[in-house]
Amino acid sequence: MAKYVFGVDIGGTTVKLGLFDTDGNVSDKWEIPTRTENSGTNILPDIAKSIQDKMSEKGIDKAEVAGVGVGAPGPVDGDGIIHKAVNLGWGELNLKKELTALLGGMRVEGGNDANVAALGEMWKGGGQGHKNLVAVTLGTGVGGGIIINGKIMTGATGSGGEIGHIHVEDNETEACGCGNYGCLEEYASATGITRLANRKLETSGKASVLRQGEVSAKAVFDAVKAGDELAIEIAQQFGEYLGKGLAVIAGVINPEIFVIGGGVSKAGEVLFDYIRPSFEKTVFHGCRNTGFALATLGNDAGIYGAARMILE
Amino acid sequence: MAKYVFGVDIGGTTVKLGLFDTDGNVSDKWEIPTRTENSGTNILPDIAKSIQDKMSEKGIDKAEVAGVGVGAPGPVDGDGIIHKAVNLGWGELNLKKELTALLGGMRVEGGNDANVAALGEMWKGGGQGHKNLVAVTLGTGVGGGIIINGKIMTGATGSGGEIGHIHVEDNETEACGCGNYGCLEEYASATGITRLANRKLETSGKASVLRQGEVSAKAVFDAVKAGDELAIEIAQQFGEYLGKGLAVIAGVINPEIFVIGGGVSKAGEVLFDYIRPSFEKTVFHGCRNTGFALATLGNDAGIYGAARMILE
Repeated sequence: MAKYVFGVDIGGTTVKLGLFDTDGNVSDKWEIPTRTENSGTNILPDIAKSIQDKMSEKGIDKAEVAGVGVGAPGPVDGDGIIHKAVNLGWGELNLKKELTALLGGMRVEGGNDANVAALGEMWKGGGQGHKNLVAVTLGTGVGGGIIINGKIMTGATGSGGEIGHIHVEDNETEACGCGNYGCLEEYASATGITRLANRKLETSGKASVLRQGEVSAKAVFDAVKAGDELAIEIAQQFGEYLGKGLAVIAGVINPEIFVIGGGVSKAGEVLFDYIRPSFEKTVFHGCRNTGFALATLGNDAGIYGAARMILE
Repeated sequence: MAKYVFGVDIGGTTVKLGLFDTDGNVSDKWEIPTRTENSGTNILPDIAKSIQDKMSEKGIDKAEVAGVGVGAPGPVDGDGIIHKAVNLGWGELNLKKELTALLGGMRVEGGNDANVAALGEMWKGGGQGHKNLVAVTLGTGVGGGIIINGKIMTGATGSGGEIGHIHVEDNETEACGCGNYGCLEEYASATGITRLANRKLETSGKASVLRQGEVSAKAVFDAVKAGDELAIEIAQQFGEYLGKGLAVIAGVINPEIFVIGGGVSKAGEVLFDYIRPSFEKTVFHGCRNTGFALATLGNDAGIYGAARMILE
């Protein structure tokens, strides 16, 4: 009987791998480099070899492995086909089929990395006990993953949960990386918060600790905690956009909880003090009690969620 | 073997009922009044009696009925419990359990009316051939129903798809019926379009056929078709809000298609000419090819979707 599951999270620099038992306990975690040269043709063979090496090392037989779940940075459709992963050099690729072949027919499931991480947070992280949640990753960009009845909502073309690019500001003059103007990511990512801070520092005459040293999302929230007025104004702007964006998402999806992760979330629960007011002001009353929690798995959310895809 | 299904759509004034075969062909449609007095305690017994009378009339045995699907105007959770239906006088009620008991153990499934209508449009209406769609009802208010992988997305508390109350305007000074300011419903419902028209008629000096006769959503789109400049400006405002709102929904859900119904949709495909520009301007590029179609089942969408709940 199957006793083991592998969870794989393919990033632009490293591939994270985890060996789990079927209860979701991780017994080993390791990384290999992501070889993106030659259109990323080595990536899947490298993963297969690393899994097979681990099985040899631990004396695990193929029949004991329930399968291999994989998260990848691009839209993955319901058939396990990834349509483009710019960071890996991949065009269209049948992730599921190719890795299965490399692993001698072992079961493989694939998903978009943000969606897979959301599943991980549901299973063993900040969303435990919930089956309908939205995971929000506030990192360099803003990512999202939506879980409905315990399953990833992939969307028609694998773009489900791409919440970083929902429109929240009509009067933006700087373009988002996606080419549009006024995307949530322009205000709620680490980069977005830095941009808000620089704008505020230019237009305000107020003294602030942010006028010394490097401006970053971390510096802003450190200053907020120290009571810096200008930093608080920046946090309010951030919270207004993010709260408004999450209110719309709540009105559409009606999740039980938002699980907030990514680098910005290291600021901690203070974030909620700034998100909640605008969330509550604009959200549909039937969704006003949606919960907020911090993600707890950090960079391991991906391998957990990947393993979970096999077990659900 | 089961050959029949009943579809029931409970409205504030009448209950619509349909007798379907298991392929979804309707052989009989009828209505009974909705008796909302005494906290609506007669409604379910009236429905049960009407179904039993129809079975006697047609000589249908209980064993030949696969079940009864019911759409009701309120949030219905995954267990078939309706939490409040103001228009029916109902508080919390286990729709599924109570109607099953009244029908001698017959299978019953319940859902929110807008969600159920969305399922009907997917099955036999404007969304045929799709499994991921958002039905948008532009009537007195704006309603919505979301179908993911062929199933209704209920949401955590039955408020999934309540898209009429997503926030689309920061500078609104008139409150929506829900108490918030700047909800989609304030601009995209029949009432909303009338409001936009009245505002425009007050503030613009332009001549318009709308200055004669009663202002309504229908009058606006009739005037648009006649080339009335002021009416076109109103349609542009309507389209800007609705396009922007649907773009956000697309970014969250990534549906294959939007199916637009309700009284306003009688204006026809001209609506899309006004919705598409702002949709395309603000939507995430991965969702730019989302389709638009008109609903085709009209007031029958509810009974179709209700029947479908039993057959899915």
